[in-house]
Amino acid sequence: MKNVTKYRKQYFMPPVPSMKWAEKDRVEKAPIWCSVDLRDGNQALIVPMSLEQKIDFFKLLVKIGFKEIEVGFPAASDTEYHFLRALIEQKLIPDDVTIQVLTQAREHIIRKTFDALDGCKKAVVHVYNSTSVAQREQVFHKSKEEILKIAVDGAALLKKLADETEGNFSFEYSPESFTGTEPEYALEVCNAVLDVWKPTADKKAIINLPSTVEHSMPHVYASQVEYLCDNLKYRENVIVSLHPHNDRGCGVSDAEMGILAGADRIEGTLFGNGERTGNVDIVTLAMNMYSQGIEPELDFSDMPSICEAYEKYTGMSIDMRSPYSGALVFAAFSGSHQDAIAKGMKYREEHGEEQWTVPYLPIDPTDVGRHYEADVIRINSQSGKGGVGYILEHNFGLNLPAKMREAMGYAAKAVSDDQHKELLPEEIFDLFKKKFEDVTVPYSITEVHFKQHNGIIAEVTVDYKGEQKVAIAAGNGRLNAVSNALKKQFRLEYDLITYQEHALEQSSSSRAIAYVGIRDKEGRMYWGAGVDQDIIRASINALLTAINNKEAD
Amino acid sequence: MKNVTKYRKQYFMPPVPSMKWAEKDRVEKAPIWCSVDLRDGNQALIVPMSLEQKIDFFKLLVKIGFKEIEVGFPAASDTEYHFLRALIEQKLIPDDVTIQVLTQAREHIIRKTFDALDGCKKAVVHVYNSTSVAQREQVFHKSKEEILKIAVDGAALLKKLADETEGNFSFEYSPESFTGTEPEYALEVCNAVLDVWKPTADKKAIINLPSTVEHSMPHVYASQVEYLCDNLKYRENVIVSLHPHNDRGCGVSDAEMGILAGADRIEGTLFGNGERTGNVDIVTLAMNMYSQGIEPELDFSDMPSICEAYEKYTGMSIDMRSPYSGALVFAAFSGSHQDAIAKGMKYREEHGEEQWTVPYLPIDPTDVGRHYEADVIRINSQSGKGGVGYILEHNFGLNLPAKMREAMGYAAKAVSDDQHKELLPEEIFDLFKKKFEDVTVPYSITEVHFKQHNGIIAEVTVDYKGEQKVAIAAGNGRLNAVSNALKKQFRLEYDLITYQEHALEQSSSSRAIAYVGIRDKEGRMYWGAGVDQDIIRASINALLTAINNKEAD
Repeated sequence: MKNVTKYRKQYFMPPVPSMKWAEKDRVEKAPIWCSVDLRDGNQALIVPMSLEQKIDFFKLLVKIGFKEIEVGFPAASDTEYHFLRALIEQKLIPDDVTIQVLTQAREHIIRKTFDALDGCKKAVVHVYNSTSVAQREQVFHKSKEEILKIAVDGAALLKKLADETEGNFSFEYSPESFTGTEPEYALEVCNAVLDVWKPTADKKAIINLPSTVEHSMPHVYASQVEYLCDNLKYRENVIVSLHPHNDRGCGVSDAEMGILAGADRIEGTLFGNGERTGNVDIVTLAMNMYSQGIEPELDFSDMPSICEAYEKYTGMSIDMRSPYSGALVFAAFSGSHQDAIAKGMKYREEHGEEQWTVPYLPIDPTDVGRHYEADVIRINSQSGKGGVGYILEHNFGLNLPAKMREAMGYAAKAVSDDQHKELLPEEIFDLFKKKFEDVTVPYSITEVHFKQHNGIIAEVTVDYKGEQKVAIAAGNGRLNAVSNALKKQFRLEYDLITYQEHALEQSSSSRAIAYVGIRDKEGRMYWGAGVDQDIIRASINALLTAINNKEAD
Repeated sequence: MKNVTKYRKQYFMPPVPSMKWAEKDRVEKAPIWCSVDLRDGNQALIVPMSLEQKIDFFKLLVKIGFKEIEVGFPAASDTEYHFLRALIEQKLIPDDVTIQVLTQAREHIIRKTFDALDGCKKAVVHVYNSTSVAQREQVFHKSKEEILKIAVDGAALLKKLADETEGNFSFEYSPESFTGTEPEYALEVCNAVLDVWKPTADKKAIINLPSTVEHSMPHVYASQVEYLCDNLKYRENVIVSLHPHNDRGCGVSDAEMGILAGADRIEGTLFGNGERTGNVDIVTLAMNMYSQGIEPELDFSDMPSICEAYEKYTGMSIDMRSPYSGALVFAAFSGSHQDAIAKGMKYREEHGEEQWTVPYLPIDPTDVGRHYEADVIRINSQSGKGGVGYILEHNFGLNLPAKMREAMGYAAKAVSDDQHKELLPEEIFDLFKKKFEDVTVPYSITEVHFKQHNGIIAEVTVDYKGEQKVAIAAGNGRLNAVSNALKKQFRLEYDLITYQEHALEQSSSSRAIAYVGIRDKEGRMYWGAGVDQDIIRASINALLTAINNKEAD
């Protein structure tokens, strides 16, 4: 691509190798979660939320289990100010939830922030200034010393105003644009801020290391985080927080590797809403932990409702492939995947398997309120017998013989391929009935009588193209006798190869379904199914349909 | 969440630590790209592509620069078979592009695959079988030895049929579900396959390590990849390929870290289409390299057209936050971001800066066919003076004084907040005219005459609420004289604080715009703008509007 030479690395490696984190292979404990949906998420919406929507969203976050929620930048706009006031005055903040407010490290903004907090029992006041090379040079035109002074002055004013204001305030500092900042310098600024705050075990401070713009691979970010974790003063009284964005599509890895590198806390949003490519998606982070058996301390068990509420409040859509939440993330269209899932589910049932190991499904969809029937096995022209068989079995209670499932699979694939559309379960069921149940010409049976005499003798009244004929023959069983009668009367040539029958709708009317497969002399198989309260009649119907399918071929 | 105990790790660490890759910090060279859009991507669509759509999509992939394209699983469906035949028979495959076809390691499927390749000059035949613990136990009910034998038998048949078939065929083997397979066992299977193929420098083989389902963090996957790279036989003649999926939202990191770990080739799709959460997004991978100054060997410089074509063929939507391609990924609504971007762009221009370092924009949007005007600075209630000023300057050529920009910023924010909507550039411009240009009551000037006599004397005919008055006064300049006349005649009290003027539409009618700021005795500022071909008249209009705004307050 043209212009490639105008780019170079914008990040800085830590001065010493900092990769101890890579010895761990997974996150073992949920971090402190802080939702920034109402601030970083909200400011990135084409239409930011109204006061009422923000209150509803706040309640949603509380319900999911967030204990820390950044509610806005109250000094930045009237809406944000009024929202904070509404939360405080309407007493909407539960005792176990701490709100957080954002402010730039500028005196009048900090003062307005504390004004807005009047009457709030506790809050995190989050102060930031930008520290990257680009921002120092291009935006602030200030030296490293001057930028550090902005941070220290802001920190000192926070401390002073917190002392003067009623309420329990703790502090967070972000060297904004951390990922474009030299790690040694970011460390120097953070330590200078901590020297002002002097955090204690009772009064911890939060140091937040934002990946404001994702400039590097996640292991580079993690090594920057580890370097700071190793060298921050008052480390035992500092909560190290991360705030990853997603410009390189690696926000989730930034957060997870950052946690391994020592971070205690994650700021992010539901479904990765936020500026540009978004903040890190907390849903994915939490569910990634869950999928490895770690309690995430957030509850996404009713994902569909959360998705619906999120889309309503934000006006955004959740991508169909968004992990754990998207419409298609449990869908298997491919025949071999469907087959493996069906076998995996069966194995699980038969072996009373406790651990979830079903192929192609990273988690059990029902754990997040999704359904096997609607969400997993979906039928298009790429699908095969496994999927179609699964749908017929799980949605409609039909347990087809293996070879008949194959024939039904081809029939479904042909319709989907031809009509160029997905087939919904009802359409599959209708197709099954059309192909294998409702084929009543040229042969139909109006009456059957059996006599037991050296085996079974069947007397069958058949309607063949409008003409009634009576066929009689013996057999070693009722179905066999009927088959023999038909063969004899109409000179039919086939072998009855497969017969299978099971009860339908076990709890109610006790109807049965029978499946019959016959083979002609060229070796071709034809299939039929029959449903009746009488199991004999069901099997005769199945045989008739199979014969009719053969005749139609 | 309930049910968390039913999950455990489903992945296996390599037997020796394999983290040398982490010493590198970025991908330094484009891998061999292989698009699997037409196979893995296509099979995951609710409605798979038709033959015609596939041919169009194939042409799009060729145009972007893909040299290897997996075109389908020809033995699996008629559509896929006919598509391959169409590519071959219609001679649609350029000489520098190699197609790839997928087949299970089963004899009749492999044979049908070679039948489908009849007449093809060259192709990669990609054979796979599933090797994970879950699939061995639940789906295939086979031992490790039996599963290895499937792979080896498949490999041998490939070699045999390739020898018997005209054309230049190379081979790829995938231990499918690699990420759920013990690395030592995957290595054993791959080496057994390689022992059959005996790759040489002239006839390399591809070993593809799919993250069929993402079970682990990316550094775990990368260590698995490194372990295989370190221990594969014939390594110098083996192309190690990766095929990451995205179940944990880390497909991009899997691919990038896997490349650092030794992989030579990536299989993925445009925009991450594919089963469930999708395949790795090759657009993001390529653009991540580009953003660090590495030539990706794929061309996404006309991203909007590629997005449009993709959405048309697949019926999928590209997420608004999809890196480098989404509608919002360059958008800045926040005032401080807009301000920093505007300053960064100005710095870049003034310093002739070659390297791209503009804050909050990971790449220059114009490099992928996007526009600063429409895509970057967007105005809602979160925006401020910087953004509004930028829009007025870059879309309409208005360069407002700093303090007036602030006033205009507040005006725009109030409208957006009140009407609960984004303001488009035209709406911003209209608002500017309404607030600062078209305010013509209570004062308007019908005539002005100047005389030069001890400074300038202005004789101004003013319409004030329907009444014509003539005001006369002297001043040290024309604007000053008009101002003095108005003050005297109507007992107005203000100080003229700011005056600024510049040409508009430089190439055409040479009109000018003037901006005037006045301060009342309480210190409040009022602003006006005026446009005229005559620069004096423009400045008088601006003054009048400022006075009218003051009167209206």
